[in-house]
Amino acid sequence: MAVGRLFGLGVGPGDPELLTLKALRLLRAAPVVAYPAPENGDSFARRIVANWLDGGQQEIAIRFPMRPGPPPVSIYRAAAARLAGELDRGRDVAYLCQGDPLFFGSFAGILESFDGNYPVTIVPGVSSPAACAAAARLPLVERDESLAVIPATLPQSELARRIAASEAAVIVKLGRHFMKLRQVLAALDRLDAAVYVERASLPNQRVVPLASVDPGSVPYFATALVVPRG
Amino acid sequence: MAVGRLFGLGVGPGDPELLTLKALRLLRAAPVVAYPAPENGDSFARRIVANWLDGGQQEIAIRFPMRPGPPPVSIYRAAAARLAGELDRGRDVAYLCQGDPLFFGSFAGILESFDGNYPVTIVPGVSSPAACAAAARLPLVERDESLAVIPATLPQSELARRIAASEAAVIVKLGRHFMKLRQVLAALDRLDAAVYVERASLPNQRVVPLASVDPGSVPYFATALVVPRG
Repeated sequence: MAVGRLFGLGVGPGDPELLTLKALRLLRAAPVVAYPAPENGDSFARRIVANWLDGGQQEIAIRFPMRPGPPPVSIYRAAAARLAGELDRGRDVAYLCQGDPLFFGSFAGILESFDGNYPVTIVPGVSSPAACAAAARLPLVERDESLAVIPATLPQSELARRIAASEAAVIVKLGRHFMKLRQVLAALDRLDAAVYVERASLPNQRVVPLASVDPGSVPYFATALVVPRG
Repeated sequence: MAVGRLFGLGVGPGDPELLTLKALRLLRAAPVVAYPAPENGDSFARRIVANWLDGGQQEIAIRFPMRPGPPPVSIYRAAAARLAGELDRGRDVAYLCQGDPLFFGSFAGILESFDGNYPVTIVPGVSSPAACAAAARLPLVERDESLAVIPATLPQSELARRIAASEAAVIVKLGRHFMKLRQVLAALDRLDAAVYVERASLPNQRVVPLASVDPGSVPYFATALVVPRG
């Protein structure tokens, strides 16, 4: 019996209509659907495609702790072993990835944790910087400009150095790092050009000047755009 | 009579199946479809969605010179005026954008060239860095890593500085700048980790070590990935 195939499917930033035709086709054909989820509660990746899941597929939630810092390696290894069990039985597995499978997120860690070799197909998805730019209607880069995507979790001096090195910056994972970023942007004289985006592509998306944001209200998945025409 | 709406539709990197459900719905509903095209020949953006165009829509090709350097402002102004003519007659216009509408490309320049205000909706798309990473099966960024997207058209010293400032770099628009990039990567001791990608997501996509590429064969739309796990 041939082993199953593993599909890493980008399901986009949140709007269910930002799924690609290819991800939809492969999602519906797979007997097993897996996705990351918090320790308690719903998976955001699953919620994006919920209307396409008719209950006829086996579902596997890979639960990650929501603590700051990288998840323990043991979670990735256990997840890979669990998915390998299905693949070894000849069953295809579709792993749902919020945004794009190879741009942050859990899929790369799981992929690196397989003991054996399995056929892998990766379907790229719409990533959060693109969704944030569309929400704010701000061009990210034109002509010879560079774009940097930078996690706000970095130390202040590294944040400042990396934002200064490109014409355009998208700063992700704001949460409790918001005030640090705000101070960095003020020191770089870029605060007035910075735009804050929450829940890009969802009906309740929020796009406001970053300087107007209450630091106590910022979730982990908020994003800042610092672009030439901001 | 209400004015028409302008839709900037990301149609993805090349595989027609990487169109989103939203872009497909809006494309099919628009009476006018516009797209960038070379001075002579077919539009790549149009080719991606060609199977969905049934001949019942008006098509407008915006023709750009294929010379190096930014296109003249007059082309953007003429394009905006042409599209405004349709919008003023109450007709919706779908402008097709290869990849994502706000990540390089012609849409931002046209948007900035409108005289009047029109309702604009931007539908983000799968961008070429995501497609290249999927083709190469290489994670772009994980955890606290940063990603820089850098045009190879920059001077050598700027290329080196920007590549060195991030863990991961995607260098776009290679073409005749390939040898300059190769020298920069060798000087940074990153040449062995660099992967060259052409026509990502298309049936004839090419993924090879960058060091093995014949510099004389490199098209403008080739991409280099320099990533931590390359």
